[in-house]
Amino acid sequence: MNVMFLGTGAGIPAKARNVTSIALQLLEERKAIWLFDCGEATQHQILHTSIKPRKIEKIFITHMHGDHIYGLPGLISSRSFQGGEDLLTIYGPRGLEEFVRISLSVSHSHLTYPIKFIEIEEGIVFEDQQFKVIAKKLEHGIDSYGYRVVEKDLPGKLLVNKLEAFSIKPGPIYQKIKEGKQILLDDGTILEGKDFLGPQQKGRIVTILGDTRYTESSLELALEADLLVHEATFSEEDEELAYNYYHSTTKQAAFIARNSKAKKLLLTHISSRYQTEADLMKLVEEAKRIYPMSYLASDFMQIEIPKNRV
Amino acid sequence: MNVMFLGTGAGIPAKARNVTSIALQLLEERKAIWLFDCGEATQHQILHTSIKPRKIEKIFITHMHGDHIYGLPGLISSRSFQGGEDLLTIYGPRGLEEFVRISLSVSHSHLTYPIKFIEIEEGIVFEDQQFKVIAKKLEHGIDSYGYRVVEKDLPGKLLVNKLEAFSIKPGPIYQKIKEGKQILLDDGTILEGKDFLGPQQKGRIVTILGDTRYTESSLELALEADLLVHEATFSEEDEELAYNYYHSTTKQAAFIARNSKAKKLLLTHISSRYQTEADLMKLVEEAKRIYPMSYLASDFMQIEIPKNRV
Repeated sequence: MNVMFLGTGAGIPAKARNVTSIALQLLEERKAIWLFDCGEATQHQILHTSIKPRKIEKIFITHMHGDHIYGLPGLISSRSFQGGEDLLTIYGPRGLEEFVRISLSVSHSHLTYPIKFIEIEEGIVFEDQQFKVIAKKLEHGIDSYGYRVVEKDLPGKLLVNKLEAFSIKPGPIYQKIKEGKQILLDDGTILEGKDFLGPQQKGRIVTILGDTRYTESSLELALEADLLVHEATFSEEDEELAYNYYHSTTKQAAFIARNSKAKKLLLTHISSRYQTEADLMKLVEEAKRIYPMSYLASDFMQIEIPKNRV
Repeated sequence: MNVMFLGTGAGIPAKARNVTSIALQLLEERKAIWLFDCGEATQHQILHTSIKPRKIEKIFITHMHGDHIYGLPGLISSRSFQGGEDLLTIYGPRGLEEFVRISLSVSHSHLTYPIKFIEIEEGIVFEDQQFKVIAKKLEHGIDSYGYRVVEKDLPGKLLVNKLEAFSIKPGPIYQKIKEGKQILLDDGTILEGKDFLGPQQKGRIVTILGDTRYTESSLELALEADLLVHEATFSEEDEELAYNYYHSTTKQAAFIARNSKAKKLLLTHISSRYQTEADLMKLVEEAKRIYPMSYLASDFMQIEIPKNRV
């Protein structure tokens, strides 16, 4: 599981930072990639990575501003061009389906795979045996959501050495043990499955927020997250600008990370007014003073999210 | 007057070639730039040039395929973000206005300047004192247009030396002479304005075609053009593929250039199947065998269109 930033700029593309898109790579977990937002030229950025568009299983859109959605029609068309066949599910606010459907329709695009749209509201927007994704509204003038991706706890591993000590050989009995059931050996011994399992592995939490002012909603979404991605369009000095434009400062993002007990904070959606090395150093230092595990995202940066120790 | 290629690839973006957009730079003529097609990330390409989005006065769309229009919403929004105030006029087939208006509307984009859409048909789509733009349908499965941009002949220059020989000093009289009128000097001499004017300078013609099969319509659009931009998606060996996908080969483009007596041919919309230097050399040689003044376009290539000698 890792997060790759495909675009870390704000509003309009710049040479150094494209508009927003973030890939949550779940290749080991489910051979899939989930995209969060899809600004213009996201597919162009992908050309410089190992990401295969046909592996993109889900796209979660935080809000409808152009710098977060204008790359969708192109990416969707190219995924088809490159032989994608699997369902693509797109989650986002009202208006998203209309935008995509009309873009594809006026351009006579016929896809080789089905698309499903889920118009989101607050709450659980996706859940299966592996993952749960929770959405909650932030504060951005228009509807803007944050997403909390929760990996479910993994069952303990089979303690094979211990099983061998009891001369239990691989076979259907292993499955019973994995499920923690009681088992009866040929010699009449009764064993408890759970005694042959290592501890459960705690699932990981990745929180990716859309554009927002400082808001309490973020705390709930980020609670004890392994990784929090929070916008920091402005420096702490420009707090008034941030408020007026419904954005956050570095310092506000860091407060959210600290108060939610997140393990790591990645700052993104950086205004192009901050360009020099010194400017960027200053931004990250503002955050680090509040919350030491703060980092500034850059295009193509990858953050591994290690399995939780047990 | 020059043409800059912003994207010279076909269908989907590749590292070496972006999807289609061509800038006709008329800075000397009218301090403006006209764009032909606007594939995704055209605004990103522009970041690497000296083009100012607010100087883009007109956008002509050849046809509605995604690789020719998906960059419009982003470019239009950014032109606003960067302080554009002047009217932008967009010419193109039916469906274009709906696509742009809905994209801007769902993304809550409020522009700082007005946009006007002209839904084109065959014929003159624009004319003023300087230029005339003629559109004609090509053959691409869906409506696809070619554009012939005709610069009007420039009036002859005032022969100042000759005027001075008659002791005629600069003043309102110069304007009369420029207009070729008769003038009466104080000593009763009558002069013909046209005798004091150099020869008219013939206007230039630039023909930019949308995606198309080989078609006679192209000949009319390209007649004696100073520059013809013609798609060449395929090599001459893949003529059947070209036909089936409603595209042209290098050789077909060269025939159009030769038979229309165009002065120069630029091949664009090159399929990504041709990547190596050898492949690309072969493409241009196929065209040169038919029509020696053939060149292969590449992203950011600029072609100056010199004033016609008189």
